[in-house]
Amino acid sequence: MAPSSTPGKNQVFIGTFIHAKCLGELEYLHNTAVCVDASGTIVAIEPNCNQQKAVETLYARLGWSLDNVAITVARHELQFFFPGFIDTHVHASQYPNVGVFGKSTLLDWLNKYTFPMEASLSSLSKARRVYTRCIRRTLANGTTTAAYYATIDVKATNLLADLCYSMGQRAFIGRVCMDRLGPEYYLDESPDHAIAATRATVEHIRRIDSNFELVSPIITPRFAPACSSEMLTRLSELQKQTQLPMQTHISENDNEIKLVAELFPDGKSYADVYDTHGILNEKMILAHAVHLTEEEADLVAERKAKIAHCPCSNSALTSGVARVRWLLEKGIQVGLGTDMSGGYSPSILDAARQATIVSNHLIAPGGQLSCASQEERDKAKLSIEEVLYLATKGGAQVLGLADKIGTFEVGMQWDAQLIDLGRVPDDVAEDDYAIHGNLDIFGWETWDERIAKWVFNGDDRNTKKVWVRGRLVHE
Amino acid sequence: MAPSSTPGKNQVFIGTFIHAKCLGELEYLHNTAVCVDASGTIVAIEPNCNQQKAVETLYARLGWSLDNVAITVARHELQFFFPGFIDTHVHASQYPNVGVFGKSTLLDWLNKYTFPMEASLSSLSKARRVYTRCIRRTLANGTTTAAYYATIDVKATNLLADLCYSMGQRAFIGRVCMDRLGPEYYLDESPDHAIAATRATVEHIRRIDSNFELVSPIITPRFAPACSSEMLTRLSELQKQTQLPMQTHISENDNEIKLVAELFPDGKSYADVYDTHGILNEKMILAHAVHLTEEEADLVAERKAKIAHCPCSNSALTSGVARVRWLLEKGIQVGLGTDMSGGYSPSILDAARQATIVSNHLIAPGGQLSCASQEERDKAKLSIEEVLYLATKGGAQVLGLADKIGTFEVGMQWDAQLIDLGRVPDDVAEDDYAIHGNLDIFGWETWDERIAKWVFNGDDRNTKKVWVRGRLVHE
Repeated sequence: MAPSSTPGKNQVFIGTFIHAKCLGELEYLHNTAVCVDASGTIVAIEPNCNQQKAVETLYARLGWSLDNVAITVARHELQFFFPGFIDTHVHASQYPNVGVFGKSTLLDWLNKYTFPMEASLSSLSKARRVYTRCIRRTLANGTTTAAYYATIDVKATNLLADLCYSMGQRAFIGRVCMDRLGPEYYLDESPDHAIAATRATVEHIRRIDSNFELVSPIITPRFAPACSSEMLTRLSELQKQTQLPMQTHISENDNEIKLVAELFPDGKSYADVYDTHGILNEKMILAHAVHLTEEEADLVAERKAKIAHCPCSNSALTSGVARVRWLLEKGIQVGLGTDMSGGYSPSILDAARQATIVSNHLIAPGGQLSCASQEERDKAKLSIEEVLYLATKGGAQVLGLADKIGTFEVGMQWDAQLIDLGRVPDDVAEDDYAIHGNLDIFGWETWDERIAKWVFNGDDRNTKKVWVRGRLVHE
Repeated sequence: MAPSSTPGKNQVFIGTFIHAKCLGELEYLHNTAVCVDASGTIVAIEPNCNQQKAVETLYARLGWSLDNVAITVARHELQFFFPGFIDTHVHASQYPNVGVFGKSTLLDWLNKYTFPMEASLSSLSKARRVYTRCIRRTLANGTTTAAYYATIDVKATNLLADLCYSMGQRAFIGRVCMDRLGPEYYLDESPDHAIAATRATVEHIRRIDSNFELVSPIITPRFAPACSSEMLTRLSELQKQTQLPMQTHISENDNEIKLVAELFPDGKSYADVYDTHGILNEKMILAHAVHLTEEEADLVAERKAKIAHCPCSNSALTSGVARVRWLLEKGIQVGLGTDMSGGYSPSILDAARQATIVSNHLIAPGGQLSCASQEERDKAKLSIEEVLYLATKGGAQVLGLADKIGTFEVGMQWDAQLIDLGRVPDDVAEDDYAIHGNLDIFGWETWDERIAKWVFNGDDRNTKKVWVRGRLVHE
């Protein structure tokens, strides 16, 4: 595959564009042309435009010559362009285990399924196979950007970076740091070792993508129970030197929280442990945050750290339900994560679906917030528009990329997917209607209803094409 | 399409057969031949058998001639035969609304989305379109038997029966009875009217399938809030005369339960209302049962009524979580229902997946049972093997068909699906590996892990062929 930095043609996309510019509202741009230059940047958004008008007026304005423009037109009214999905928390190295978790919960799941699989990826041929499939699968599901955890193995981690770069997925690549909790065969021998290994991955990525435009390293302490105090301190120093983003886990499971209290007896809370070690800042992505206390959430908000909400994982591992509305109302930026393979699904569309579902569980009779007033209960539910925001712009905020991706605006990059909801048969006999994907559109649905059908029954079959920085990376 | 009673050829199926004969355990029959006669009945199950051995030994034993046998072989080791799924609760008439429910809960959902859609199906052309797609979609998802609610309209209800019969889906067809709660435009004018209408559908089905072998009527009081006391009494009389099965809803939503208490002030409980009206018996299928009290569950168990567990619906409409383990331990038979369009998914595989997930929500920190001991909490979780039992044999028990369908045994009918989990590439370059469905099988998985991957990421793409009573009804 051509490296993704190869300059391409100018491009025009014509049709309906839908995106979530603010929480709770989708903007629909019908009959619109979006012009993307050879670097993958959106340079014009023209309403009331068709192909002819684009050629006649836009090209001149942009100084484009006719013979260097590729045109993509949404072919019928059930096709539309949507921003690429952003997976703010995913373990590429656990991909073969999706769906395989039995009745385990976090700590026994790590030992039984996760550490052995991650350790086995020190075999580069196995790592290549696993990472290739993970990237292809997530691209096919419309994920244009992923914040990956790899393993403790530097070579395999660097391979993940190479594969993302060549396959064209925007990615953060985390070499996992852990000097305790794991089995003997899968541990950093010292913080020194972890720092050196992390630096090795940073340097590798700098060689393939010098400005980290497509692929970036991310500093990755696994989570407090797996990191000594010295490890956290050293990684904090590294982060201050490099200004790289960071990712870790927080407050996913009751026993994990107890373990943190035991391991860090001076810590006032799980969040406080990260804070006192200097890693709770605006560059930190915290996965889960299911059981944060009021004080912890306030601290996270004050430090401007971000949260990756992983509903499939939290449901699968019996972790509980994160209170997303409560986090958002504190001003915390929240995105969605598949958290494979704690989460079973590679799809952020599925994560969005489950984000609405678990917000209902939070307030259902017997749920965490079931004693709240009707008004509060209604408020806690997340709408379709809101979870699609979390899946795109919310994720971009979490990854510090809200000025580049997540919505369609001039100056931003063309990370997008062409969605096709199928066809409403008219001139064919109804009985001949072939099944397209898992959706049935009857023709009378409003746009809101079409989107609802997509969120609840859509899958990768509805994702016809996927672009990152203007490059077609899946079709 | 040929009517499904047309005698066909004898058939042999060869490969791996997997089924859930008892709760919590899957039986794997590898290298096995299953012989099905022209009536669709399994007449032999032969282990350690291949095509040649079947021809040489089984045909003679069965008195089959070589030229009248069709052979279907699972083509590679990631294909297997599984019993057809059984949907014990589904509103065919609400199919166009799947995924469309916003933030509503049961009672406002009925008024906003459901009654208008159901009423509109008095247009037979619309009903034909909706029902055809519903049947095709559920067949494509492996549903060989469905307990359908239609509408109050007799002609449209009869059309649903005709379509199930011609498309070959085993079905129970319920003409909905409701003489209150609904809007003026969508109500039975009297119990007399409801009884006459129900009888009209019974007679219609008797004409197309005289012994109700494929399609059967089912007496369908919508639920207590929509039925006067006289309506329930009259339907009970009709059931005693006809011995037909019955279906209704129970204890789905808190406000619904309050409404029942107001409408039936003499009733000791929701279940007691059905019992005192004579319809809580072994022929009754109760959907939901989310909030039953201990006394109600004991009463349901004593009367041998059945329960349709609908996890997608209960999650979507914020109804809560049914305590399936608790019901099973009382000896109540439980199946799964999609409950479209309260539920968003047409797939019983999805219902099985969500049944495990909601059992986790029940016991997650903050869930209904979160204060129980660790042992009790572990017990409440439903395993993959258990939810696949509910999806097949459990459903057969609920519909009174456990002697005919749900497992592979001699004397039972061939209601089955051929599942394909994809291919493990060996002689093709890894990068050329085409994506089959939403699953990635790497080749090292145990059968348990393959099944787990199917349950958590499988979809209709993995359902290659579907048979009912020996007839191929989808491929």
